[in-house]
Amino acid sequence: MLKSEGLNVAVVGVTGAVGTRMLKMLESSPLPVKSLFPLASVRSAGKKVLFCGKEWTIEEAKPESFEHIDIALFSAGGSVSKQLAPEAAKRGAIVIDNTSAFRMDKDVPLVVPEVNEQALFKHHGIIANPNCSTIQMVAALEPIRKAYGLTRIIVSTYQAVSGAGAKAIAELESQSKAVLDGETPEVAIMPVKGDKKHYQMAFNAIPQIDLFQPNDYTFEEMKMINETKKIMDDQEIKVSATCVRVPVSISHGESVYIEIDKTDVASADLKHLLADAPGVILEDDPANQVYPMPASATGKKEVFVGRIRRDPDVANGFHMWIVSDNLLKGAAWNSVQIAESLLKLGLVKV
Amino acid sequence: MLKSEGLNVAVVGVTGAVGTRMLKMLESSPLPVKSLFPLASVRSAGKKVLFCGKEWTIEEAKPESFEHIDIALFSAGGSVSKQLAPEAAKRGAIVIDNTSAFRMDKDVPLVVPEVNEQALFKHHGIIANPNCSTIQMVAALEPIRKAYGLTRIIVSTYQAVSGAGAKAIAELESQSKAVLDGETPEVAIMPVKGDKKHYQMAFNAIPQIDLFQPNDYTFEEMKMINETKKIMDDQEIKVSATCVRVPVSISHGESVYIEIDKTDVASADLKHLLADAPGVILEDDPANQVYPMPASATGKKEVFVGRIRRDPDVANGFHMWIVSDNLLKGAAWNSVQIAESLLKLGLVKV
Repeated sequence: MLKSEGLNVAVVGVTGAVGTRMLKMLESSPLPVKSLFPLASVRSAGKKVLFCGKEWTIEEAKPESFEHIDIALFSAGGSVSKQLAPEAAKRGAIVIDNTSAFRMDKDVPLVVPEVNEQALFKHHGIIANPNCSTIQMVAALEPIRKAYGLTRIIVSTYQAVSGAGAKAIAELESQSKAVLDGETPEVAIMPVKGDKKHYQMAFNAIPQIDLFQPNDYTFEEMKMINETKKIMDDQEIKVSATCVRVPVSISHGESVYIEIDKTDVASADLKHLLADAPGVILEDDPANQVYPMPASATGKKEVFVGRIRRDPDVANGFHMWIVSDNLLKGAAWNSVQIAESLLKLGLVKV
Repeated sequence: MLKSEGLNVAVVGVTGAVGTRMLKMLESSPLPVKSLFPLASVRSAGKKVLFCGKEWTIEEAKPESFEHIDIALFSAGGSVSKQLAPEAAKRGAIVIDNTSAFRMDKDVPLVVPEVNEQALFKHHGIIANPNCSTIQMVAALEPIRKAYGLTRIIVSTYQAVSGAGAKAIAELESQSKAVLDGETPEVAIMPVKGDKKHYQMAFNAIPQIDLFQPNDYTFEEMKMINETKKIMDDQEIKVSATCVRVPVSISHGESVYIEIDKTDVASADLKHLLADAPGVILEDDPANQVYPMPASATGKKEVFVGRIRRDPDVANGFHMWIVSDNLLKGAAWNSVQIAESLLKLGLVKV
């Protein structure tokens, strides 16, 4: 519901897969929104979006768009954020940026509210929303880290195509149709829109998300490694990642191996912890085939954890399976949740 | 080509996803086949199969079917193997069994020819073909184990539905069509035909393959753990597995982490090793986006390895991505390859 006293909120990239969900998350949030400023590229300017039962006209995102904005949610790609987020901050808006543009900047808090909400106090106008696959992992592991210490993480991801945007979902659908009809699928976007080669995503698995780095890890893998250490504020945790795209539209799966500081912890202890953890839902009942899956996590805000079991040979080693909606907790919901935290901590005033 | 002097070969379960491929692998093998004995359940008896340009009539598999058979390839499910493989062996046939029925029996060699061909000398009439996901992993890791020692394996699988048979492929296709048409998909087979609950496989990932065991690992995961140790003849290797089914028709992917005995090995050393390894094809050129994928591995007999890189924090730790056609090297081809090894080693005589 719109408030007469409240915040002016801008959403940059409002027509995208994440932007549309930011509006939904804002609508269901207790955050007092006075006015919405839907922003996008010039192509979308003039179109309308529905928010809180009212039509709002999309305007082209420009430096001047951010005059009188309290909170600006950015999800229009790294280059747009690099150009416009400092302009918005300069004009007094607090930017919550969903791209990787500022995540590793020392002056930019990288925040998952369940993990490091207090880092928000150190912001200088820009706050970064972590990478989707990182968010769900650290949200699930933080309760374990707090209770038992965390020395090592090895993650293999099963990532949905929506992480590459709405066009990637459309490509998966059209490719799937083509394959089922016995036709040759058109291949134009996956694995990485700007890379040299493209491969069929339908009924396939592609071990490349984002561009390769000089060390032969992909940028997505390095994001998981570096962001995890920054969010948990611990450069000593050993983190490694293998990121793979699978033909799923929404919600990432993660097979995660961890080592903790103690050897006398049972998998039941971890389950008890996670059953009460904020933002986490334990789905772990093998006898009744209860475990997280993308199909059941999609559309929900929580991080789902299951398949928790001790390593057969390593007393302080545990395996688990973590699933969450990459467009919600992985992006839109975590961004709006950060806005809610800002209000709660008195960092933004109505 | 059929030989006037040669072997009488029975194929049990000849109409299945693996059985049909066993015929193809036999056709292209130098193995001298004199006569084919296609066997199946009573439902398929009387139907014809084409082999080496000739039609052969399927007969019902019974104990007497194995009189005068030299080699019997079984792939009709564990219960059929349990009942009929001993009957075939009793009648002098050498059984190569693709099910899990005898794999962990002390008297049954569990063989991947690139790894432990010599174990065939110890057979007593029955030889087991390992689990599909195990075969491709050990074929890729054995050259590394030989050169540098292998102390630890952590694997997360991305397994194709064809591992659950031809009906699972059909289910994935019909579910995919339903979802794309906006209809509710019918759910009857996955993740495990005989288990209590079934879940949508299309555009989903399911962290259950085969039934759960009392230790909360699935039987598929325990197969990977136990079979790897048996094939490599080393109970000291630490092995753990998380097995996940993905909406791919054919070819399994595996994200594999290993630790070796030495700390002065570079990822380039592992690549050199695997480039020359038998049955392995190195596909590892990140700069040119060259890596293995199910879509490119399907229909090929080799095991494809790529994405080899050192762990960021552990000097003797390496990550890699292994893909192979689960119906060929994971089943039909490895079985026929075992038959070729038997002939080469003089364990079967023409």
